[in-house]
Amino acid sequence: MKKVAIGVDIGGTFTKYGIVDKAGTALAEGTMDTTEYPEIEGFITALGERLDLLLKAIPEDVEVVGAGVGAPNGNYYKGTIEFAPNLRWKGVVPFCELFTKITGFKTVLTNDANAAAIGEMIFGGGQNMRDFVVITLGTGLGSGIVVNGELVNGHDGFAGELGHTTVDYNGRVCGCGRKGCLETYASATGIKRTVFELMAIMVEDSALRRIPFDDLTSKDISDAAQKGDPIAIEAFERTGRYLGYKLADTVAHLSPECIFLMGGLAQAGELILEPTRRYFEEHLLQVYKNKIKILPSGMEDMNAAIAGAAALAWKDFAK
Amino acid sequence: MKKVAIGVDIGGTFTKYGIVDKAGTALAEGTMDTTEYPEIEGFITALGERLDLLLKAIPEDVEVVGAGVGAPNGNYYKGTIEFAPNLRWKGVVPFCELFTKITGFKTVLTNDANAAAIGEMIFGGGQNMRDFVVITLGTGLGSGIVVNGELVNGHDGFAGELGHTTVDYNGRVCGCGRKGCLETYASATGIKRTVFELMAIMVEDSALRRIPFDDLTSKDISDAAQKGDPIAIEAFERTGRYLGYKLADTVAHLSPECIFLMGGLAQAGELILEPTRRYFEEHLLQVYKNKIKILPSGMEDMNAAIAGAAALAWKDFAK
Repeated sequence: MKKVAIGVDIGGTFTKYGIVDKAGTALAEGTMDTTEYPEIEGFITALGERLDLLLKAIPEDVEVVGAGVGAPNGNYYKGTIEFAPNLRWKGVVPFCELFTKITGFKTVLTNDANAAAIGEMIFGGGQNMRDFVVITLGTGLGSGIVVNGELVNGHDGFAGELGHTTVDYNGRVCGCGRKGCLETYASATGIKRTVFELMAIMVEDSALRRIPFDDLTSKDISDAAQKGDPIAIEAFERTGRYLGYKLADTVAHLSPECIFLMGGLAQAGELILEPTRRYFEEHLLQVYKNKIKILPSGMEDMNAAIAGAAALAWKDFAK
Repeated sequence: MKKVAIGVDIGGTFTKYGIVDKAGTALAEGTMDTTEYPEIEGFITALGERLDLLLKAIPEDVEVVGAGVGAPNGNYYKGTIEFAPNLRWKGVVPFCELFTKITGFKTVLTNDANAAAIGEMIFGGGQNMRDFVVITLGTGLGSGIVVNGELVNGHDGFAGELGHTTVDYNGRVCGCGRKGCLETYASATGIKRTVFELMAIMVEDSALRRIPFDDLTSKDISDAAQKGDPIAIEAFERTGRYLGYKLADTVAHLSPECIFLMGGLAQAGELILEPTRRYFEEHLLQVYKNKIKILPSGMEDMNAAIAGAAALAWKDFAK
């Protein structure tokens, strides 16, 4: 009987789920609307039914080792989702307890960026590394940290919030209520804010000047940069500086072998990697220079969110 | 036969050494002049002779499990001291290899702040903690990080240089060749620089205005603050702000249970602890508030440098 793990990635809008084999390949996958379920029990019941259908649809006989779940504000130690601003389920949700009770599957949960780091460790570019960091550049900036071959959860399960390290104590207002957090500069949203700042500072014409704030995506910005748009190019330059400088602080903590970038903004490839690496190297302490890699995720061809969550189950339940 | 470990703390000026039992008590200790020995072999030979005399002076029969050594730029993985600016032995010194060859003792080496963290783990306030950080506030700012119960060495053995995270990219010139490093603000030297900045900014009279830069110590500053000196008090306030704000970045990486402060400037006690805690709490991300302790070292009554180095030997050789 073939062993498989369930991977679930809970997002504010959509939840992605899949059945993943030991190599990280999704044998089957699906998507459901997270927002339809005001109560967590209803959500888990519906998810469980979808997982049952998915398992039955796999032609081989399979044995489920367990389920791994990535969720915003997910706590590994407690199996809870706590005060997640973008989910309808308020307060402290005992997710793992409810999931196992309703579906019968063993469950382990962590936050989405930590799940990505576990995915990178088990299936991706971190397979032979003991020390690395994963940065997800999406709406915000998430991070998962691996030290001595183990995920860093911190004493309370909430380690790895590099998006909320500070670039400028008097800087941009952040959704967390503070100012100048890295994610207000280095993320899909952050580069958009930089573009609008640059439209005020610069006088050059730009295709981006025809797009309203609410419609502009990081894809629009990278497309414009590819065509030589001066504002888009400068926006990537500044984003790389913010990120590269700040990652030098991360190195002074952890001295990882590699920092992997993934998520929407990382899709811009060298547009974001090149300036990030350049400012990073320029600012590193001498002892760290020319030896720490900044690479795109090694999970680009997988559904990283589902595979990462499933990797957590493989790691914890299939020892 | 009583088991003991040798602890050696190599500083730029003095080297301290001792014979330490399993509880962290130094049964015997001594100090030698590091600068007298232009060649590392001569230094180790002299140290070995002193250790032999020390061991013979202990009334009980003892068995040495090994030697732990803390040294600037010490590399745990390689057992080397590499390009230490304040030592006479240049380039890469294969310390452990030479020490074992000359003295016959098994040896393990790390940098001085990492040795302090191991000391805190084995003998001090970190005994029941899996995740904590030790900050040494001396001439510079050193740090040792413990995650999941293990010291963080990083991929190259050089993790934990929090003194070289950046407070201000256009800030004070640092000995490392960059600008605005935390240790140029938060250290015995850093607070002295702040005092001189404040003498320019403020008009209040102060006893510190009668002391030249080269003579002023952090002890003078804390003595003045105790007496209500306005410049000294403001200097502690600002030092606490720099340190507290920046430690919030460390928490966003690691979420430790506790941050221990030790070293010369930490001797100022609440003068430095109170503003550090206040600005730290003010700036923490919500999820971390009111649960991470900032405490003085739990090794205050020991010779922390020797005990920390010996703890490394206990940890690695007496499993």
